[in-house]
Amino acid sequence: MAKEITARSKDTFSEWYLDIVQKAGLAQNSPVRGCMVIKPWGFALWENMRDALDKMFKDTGHVNAYFPLFIPKSFLSKEASHVEGFAKECAVVTHYRLKNDPAGGGVIVDPEAKLEEELIVRPTSETIIWDTYRDWIQSYRDLPLLINQWANVVRWEMRTRPFLRTAEFLWQEGHTAHATSDEAVAETLKILDIYADFAENFMAMPVIKGIKTPNERFAGADETYCIEALMQDGKALQAGTSHFLGQNFAKAFEVTFLNKENKQEYVWATSWGVSTRLIGGLIMTHSDDDGLVLPPRLAPTQVVIVPIPKPTAELLDAAENIVKTLKNKGIRVTIDRDDTKRPGFKFAEHELRGVPVRIGLGARDLAEGKMEVARRDTKSKTSISLEGAADYIAALLDEIQQNLFDRAKAFRDSHITKVENFEEFQQILDEKGGFVSAHWDGTTETEEKIKELTKATIRCIPVNNVLEDGVCILTGKPSKQRVLFARAY
Amino acid sequence: MAKEITARSKDTFSEWYLDIVQKAGLAQNSPVRGCMVIKPWGFALWENMRDALDKMFKDTGHVNAYFPLFIPKSFLSKEASHVEGFAKECAVVTHYRLKNDPAGGGVIVDPEAKLEEELIVRPTSETIIWDTYRDWIQSYRDLPLLINQWANVVRWEMRTRPFLRTAEFLWQEGHTAHATSDEAVAETLKILDIYADFAENFMAMPVIKGIKTPNERFAGADETYCIEALMQDGKALQAGTSHFLGQNFAKAFEVTFLNKENKQEYVWATSWGVSTRLIGGLIMTHSDDDGLVLPPRLAPTQVVIVPIPKPTAELLDAAENIVKTLKNKGIRVTIDRDDTKRPGFKFAEHELRGVPVRIGLGARDLAEGKMEVARRDTKSKTSISLEGAADYIAALLDEIQQNLFDRAKAFRDSHITKVENFEEFQQILDEKGGFVSAHWDGTTETEEKIKELTKATIRCIPVNNVLEDGVCILTGKPSKQRVLFARAY
Repeated sequence: MAKEITARSKDTFSEWYLDIVQKAGLAQNSPVRGCMVIKPWGFALWENMRDALDKMFKDTGHVNAYFPLFIPKSFLSKEASHVEGFAKECAVVTHYRLKNDPAGGGVIVDPEAKLEEELIVRPTSETIIWDTYRDWIQSYRDLPLLINQWANVVRWEMRTRPFLRTAEFLWQEGHTAHATSDEAVAETLKILDIYADFAENFMAMPVIKGIKTPNERFAGADETYCIEALMQDGKALQAGTSHFLGQNFAKAFEVTFLNKENKQEYVWATSWGVSTRLIGGLIMTHSDDDGLVLPPRLAPTQVVIVPIPKPTAELLDAAENIVKTLKNKGIRVTIDRDDTKRPGFKFAEHELRGVPVRIGLGARDLAEGKMEVARRDTKSKTSISLEGAADYIAALLDEIQQNLFDRAKAFRDSHITKVENFEEFQQILDEKGGFVSAHWDGTTETEEKIKELTKATIRCIPVNNVLEDGVCILTGKPSKQRVLFARAY
Repeated sequence: MAKEITARSKDTFSEWYLDIVQKAGLAQNSPVRGCMVIKPWGFALWENMRDALDKMFKDTGHVNAYFPLFIPKSFLSKEASHVEGFAKECAVVTHYRLKNDPAGGGVIVDPEAKLEEELIVRPTSETIIWDTYRDWIQSYRDLPLLINQWANVVRWEMRTRPFLRTAEFLWQEGHTAHATSDEAVAETLKILDIYADFAENFMAMPVIKGIKTPNERFAGADETYCIEALMQDGKALQAGTSHFLGQNFAKAFEVTFLNKENKQEYVWATSWGVSTRLIGGLIMTHSDDDGLVLPPRLAPTQVVIVPIPKPTAELLDAAENIVKTLKNKGIRVTIDRDDTKRPGFKFAEHELRGVPVRIGLGARDLAEGKMEVARRDTKSKTSISLEGAADYIAALLDEIQQNLFDRAKAFRDSHITKVENFEEFQQILDEKGGFVSAHWDGTTETEEKIKELTKATIRCIPVNNVLEDGVCILTGKPSKQRVLFARAY
């Protein structure tokens, strides 16, 4: 192997993950604490994710805009519960100028350039956006306002891990304004469906749509919906959230409108976001001990052609012809023209980087009108005819996409375990992992006690949950439905 | 008119500009000093610009990546001239936590959460990127490295104006690494050509490619190339810059590589960028007293169909059919379905927002198999047959694109004036404006003296400038070539 990566096991999952992030060329740590550099291969993946999501948002009537990076400190205090959740661990700009150090060597902060009011680097943009919406909304005719922003945000996390938890990350944040509560709730659910659709059909990552408990709600939301995925180590990952904000931000920022009955009313709101965290989820859902495994619909390169044993003029000619037919079908294909490395080394490199399909093209194959096709997901190889190869490859990419989803879904489904008491609950968490479906008495107190004892949190109450009488696994109090617990990222 | 805008004149050009920015829905000021909100219409325009440029970069082998928003303060001091140019007016993060104010009401900066080293919000990313390249480059085989980043940057400007000069702005910054000086210079020029191509063929904004004087160079560059455009008020606008950085950043950040001769050598560098400032240039090149004028290739909506006098079912049906045929040709078209406003009001709105073509569709027209087509650029109207309308519109959009360019080029060409002495120089600047082509003795001292006396700067020495003996307009000293002066944004 070109670059050895740690094999997955219960104890080494974290090293395995970091090895893939680094060795597949996705990201690396930067000299700035908790901030990562997203490398070209990782960023190309993010671009494909962003473009697919952006199209889904636009197809449902949303438009993009851009709001300031900085938020005046006082804005964060305006919504009572928002400040508790977001005004703490954040980057604070206090000065606007440096000057040469009179003591020599370098620059120092100019004490005379102190801001009157400190600025916070946005941890999320509800406050500055709702402050702006006050000018944009007068009447029900101005509604709904369906706006999304692609941006960087900063949350000063103490313990960071590339993609999963970083001080700076990239995301999209949707902020919509509506004339009625019903419309806002419908929007929240529409976005939840878009997120689930994207996760399952692009990322091939099965998700459970659910509602967060009050304790896990977004700071400032009346209701938080989420999609929850399951990683290969049995831990859950919150992959996206969609919040019904009620009239909380409209009240905090005095955003009212004249409704159809000619009365002033506060505006109803939603917000929703997914981030570069999804890349962490993608890695931990599909990858293996040979490296990254990418779903074809998001892979920056879907097919790589490797001339064997090296790129001769004849093989490159043939490869170019294959490229043409594949590109005609919209397939993202490249030729490995490097003449300094051997095929085995190249194969390992492309596997490490997760390219879904590799075509091996040798002179003898070519003479027989054939080529060798290797799948990244199953590692299987087939010799196929050059004739009709483009159709074969197009179908194969679809098959790989489906196989990745099916495989991940089978794993996820086999890791939802119903338990009836606390002993079973702990045992499943420790021995099997995954989602544990259990009765809970509905109180925050019990939820926090369970977290304290087991490190498991309530991931969600599934949408359309089946009602069922039972008793809480911790307190024995009556319960009307099971909820999903898991240890989580 | 729906929203009156100030008519252009020498004294009102600035108000006219601000009116267009605001009333065409492009941007507005935010509560954060010097930061703007880019509104959906403005952002859709930026997306089209970004996508076109991004494709040009990728077609020439560049890839995107993402580097941290924050730069450690000490990094800025590492390149001697860079620190002079960039380490001054910038946003400084000194703390990473807020806490509840013990005195009640809001939050305060937690004095215990002071950073050991302050972080600067990036004003440009050479330093953090070259610090990273040290890990990425070992051998000539790792070169060239052709990387671009789309990002927000912050420069604490005292006097701001939407798009033209804002504290935070959006841009792309390319940062490439090369094995030889020649390759780096070739890259610098390749990008200059891409910028000029984009400005002229997408923005319909003619530009002059040139070289900056040492005095106007980017801080840390050996040579700065630029494209310079001319606005309708006779002032120049620097629309993009491409820098040959020599080995300056490689030396500052110790980035060396093993060359083909097996010797360690410092890496050669370029950097280049264009920003949301281009939107300001676009506005000031084409727009008129009725509002924004957009070149079709960048307009978010190229064609709007207005049913007259209102959107009846019959007219909407016919409009939908037209939409289909236009979309088949890749034309971005919308129907104005608003049933609360009159056609005259709508016409003014679409003119204000710069939609290149408006189709008026009335019942009588329809019965005759016709529709009315209005051009935004010339304000002329024609009645055309519904049959073959899509071909007509497609050709018309091309014609408008070309007309905007021709018009702007005629204006620009008629505003390059050769002068032979300082009196003429001042007179042209005061009475006519535009570029003034004059001899200069080649010293920074004279350049600064001229700026002090006239507010005009040397915009550039045109690429492939004609050599011609003459004498400096200020000092009378000998000169080998004319350079272009102008008052500038």
